Amino acid sequence: MSLRLLTVSALALGLVAAPAVAQDARTEAQAAVIRDAALKSNVALDYVTQITTRFGPRPAGSRSEQQAAAWAADYLRAQGFQNVRIEEFPLVGWERGEDSGAIIGAHPQPLVLAALGHSPATPRGGIEADVVRFTTLDDLRAAPDASVRGKIVYVDLGQMHPMQDGSGYGPQTRVRGAGPGVAAAKGAAAFILRSVGSDENRLPHTGTTQYVDGKATVPSFALSAPDADQVSRLIALGEPVRLRLSSTARTYQTHSQNVIGDLPGATRPDEIIVLGSHMDSWDQGTGAIDDAAGGAITIAAAKAIAASGQRAARTIRVVLYGSEEVAQPTRETGNGGGVYARNQGAAVEKHVIAGESDFGADRVYALRLPAGAQGSDFQKAANRVLYPIGVLSSSQVETEGGVDVGPLGPLGVPFFGLAQDGTRYFDLHHTANDTLDKIDPAQLSQNVAAWAGLVWLIADSDVDFRALRQAAAAAPSAR
Amino acid sequence: MSLRLLTVSALALGLVAAPAVAQDARTEAQAAVIRDAALKSNVALDYVTQITTRFGPRPAGSRSEQQAAAWAADYLRAQGFQNVRIEEFPLVGWERGEDSGAIIGAHPQPLVLAALGHSPATPRGGIEADVVRFTTLDDLRAAPDASVRGKIVYVDLGQMHPMQDGSGYGPQTRVRGAGPGVAAAKGAAAFILRSVGSDENRLPHTGTTQYVDGKATVPSFALSAPDADQVSRLIALGEPVRLRLSSTARTYQTHSQNVIGDLPGATRPDEIIVLGSHMDSWDQGTGAIDDAAGGAITIAAAKAIAASGQRAARTIRVVLYGSEEVAQPTRETGNGGGVYARNQGAAVEKHVIAGESDFGADRVYALRLPAGAQGSDFQKAANRVLYPIGVLSSSQVETEGGVDVGPLGPLGVPFFGLAQDGTRYFDLHHTANDTLDKIDPAQLSQNVAAWAGLVWLIADSDVDFRALRQAAAAAPSAR
Repeated sequence: MSLRLLTVSALALGLVAAPAVAQDARTEAQAAVIRDAALKSNVALDYVTQITTRFGPRPAGSRSEQQAAAWAADYLRAQGFQNVRIEEFPLVGWERGEDSGAIIGAHPQPLVLAALGHSPATPRGGIEADVVRFTTLDDLRAAPDASVRGKIVYVDLGQMHPMQDGSGYGPQTRVRGAGPGVAAAKGAAAFILRSVGSDENRLPHTGTTQYVDGKATVPSFALSAPDADQVSRLIALGEPVRLRLSSTARTYQTHSQNVIGDLPGATRPDEIIVLGSHMDSWDQGTGAIDDAAGGAITIAAAKAIAASGQRAARTIRVVLYGSEEVAQPTRETGNGGGVYARNQGAAVEKHVIAGESDFGADRVYALRLPAGAQGSDFQKAANRVLYPIGVLSSSQVETEGGVDVGPLGPLGVPFFGLAQDGTRYFDLHHTANDTLDKIDPAQLSQNVAAWAGLVWLIADSDVDFRALRQAAAAAPSAR
Repeated sequence: MSLRLLTVSALALGLVAAPAVAQDARTEAQAAVIRDAALKSNVALDYVTQITTRFGPRPAGSRSEQQAAAWAADYLRAQGFQNVRIEEFPLVGWERGEDSGAIIGAHPQPLVLAALGHSPATPRGGIEADVVRFTTLDDLRAAPDASVRGKIVYVDLGQMHPMQDGSGYGPQTRVRGAGPGVAAAKGAAAFILRSVGSDENRLPHTGTTQYVDGKATVPSFALSAPDADQVSRLIALGEPVRLRLSSTARTYQTHSQNVIGDLPGATRPDEIIVLGSHMDSWDQGTGAIDDAAGGAITIAAAKAIAASGQRAARTIRVVLYGSEEVAQPTRETGNGGGVYARNQGAAVEKHVIAGESDFGADRVYALRLPAGAQGSDFQKAANRVLYPIGVLSSSQVETEGGVDVGPLGPLGVPFFGLAQDGTRYFDLHHTANDTLDKIDPAQLSQNVAAWAGLVWLIADSDVDFRALRQAAAAAPSAR
């Protein structure tokens, strides 16, 4: 029996209910109207300008993040969102303090670096040690402990290659996450890596490193690209390179919060579409692209729908999550996305779909739908709405959602993805250079228009993405 | 009597000697050979790589500048330069120490800034004051003292426009030089300006500010472009903006030095051509483009001539000047260029011409000659050598030379100029981003080739630029 026959049989036998996928022509026409109005709206630029200017950096659990959340709740109310609320949760915050580094010895030179998130402080006065350099994490893993003990381990992966889909990031960020633990297990004194980034600026890219067994490992730093290359060149010149590294980082008990606002559905308000982004930022920049832009895009998209004078059937919910950046993957609490998902209880079953905007402010180039929606009438309608503004329908299934909406996945919520152009994202990501001036208003508007058109289409339809996914899973040949 | 007739009469009466301008065909052919060999040489990239990697930043008078000078003298000897010597001179050095700034009040935010060179320290704990903003220096000059007294004066000139010839710099750098003195005279507590630069990086552009009556004025800082714009936006939002500014800058007695090396002339070794650049750099970057590149270009150009197996008639002298960046225009000492010129004594009369390379490492696009050389056979020969690598003959007369060779001007030495493309120079200038990776090896090679071809042509000819200039001055209609 072929797979194809199996599928036909399963459907014929009524084992899988055929889900509703038809799109109402009036809904689709309205999507185009909303899309075009969103292109002309200035709400996104207003939001990202105000939050980054008024509050500057918004590290998770900081007073600045808390104040920005209170302000954002007022902003949502002023834009007409209802049931606006702040969902508070406890957090172990991390504060950079002062960090510094230098090449010491005969020809001392300062180094531009930044401690990684949740890196522990050095002893007062810093750590002084020789550098031992690796070009892969595997080489470090294979090194005898004696060659590393007491030294500063340096992993130099070279420049991250810029890609439209950001796919250069994964391999490098895994080194940032796991490298310090590997170095610590071998008795290293500290860990440094070449910044995970695609630029050549004297601006280090921070980012969180992972705990091992629930604890921080060794003091860990990202060197800016030119500084990392300088250290590598000095080693290549045959000079023994000795560094002094210092950090006064600390952790502290605090709280963070999610900010939630709804545009209640007209006819099926219990069915919820979640539009996620995060409120916190790294401490070096003002978090314009990471991720005030995500809040700006989702708020402006929902506002464009509200401003159209039409109410969608379903509820559109904007969630500005707290504490995305410093979340430890192994930790149960301390991440706004996890808190939101757990607090939903049974209501999570009425979450129709969730999407996340957390990849800058440049244009959207592809729509990714959950399994089962490929080739559906819904995808065809979405394509007709989005293709005119440069968004293609991707055959890639959206399974992850993102760090913030991700915890809804295991609870059964499907995801959509509006893939953004990440070509220049990692020039700026997690650096002091993540500031308002990096946002291109024209690309931001296109991004909002893509969200507005798609979200309206979902919110005013009866398409059941859970059922589509279930049907696809039961009918393997359809994949 | 028309001016034209006057000229003819003056020449006819033998009042002005007709200077030698003929170019030897063999010399010109050899210039093309040297030019093409220089395009393939790697001396410039080697020099700029080694000096920036080994010594990092080289502030005037620092141990690093002194060590780099000793190393560069050895480098010149190894390249075959003769009579290599170090000309030491006393200097008041300026050391940044630590500087910091922040917006204070309800929504505190850090600011990225850098103290200006020769700015005095703040009191311990810093200065706290409200900001009063101006968009021109004239507006500040016109402001009543009472509106400024005790405040932090902020001059926001907006972004410097990038231009090929760097002409956007002058108006802005005048504000950096004179602004603090104007603010101080009105009783201001401190002075800040938007960085003089064409980029949008979180990297402030430092640079020296001027003493008034031989003394430093008020603590003065350049804000990075995004930080300057953030302050301006907060003011535009109607918020009173209060800052805390801190600097531990200090001056100290030290010495700097010029490094001098010759390729002696074969037949007229007392006739000297000076190729100038500077050894010192600002403290934030490693001074790759400002001005290790200048040393690299002039050394490599001379070396390309030496490596050709031909000796020029005249002496080619490379001078790596100390202490260019912190020179005070009103001060007699403390600038390597002034020291060199004064120490020449009568020998300055045999300085045929001088040129300076201090505008980065990008390509040369124009040749500027002294007055009287426009339209000469020498210019025509130079054009034939340089045009094939993209260098046009400019009708603009070179009168300034540059900060380093400039003091030779009042002593009668003419100047040539090889104008470099400055389109991206002020993205990097005086910032931490002035590092080796910003150098484009292909453009650097073209630059060296232009210098090598032109310098050979001057050094192996009998063209007398002083006489050409004198003839032009005596015959106004020729201009």
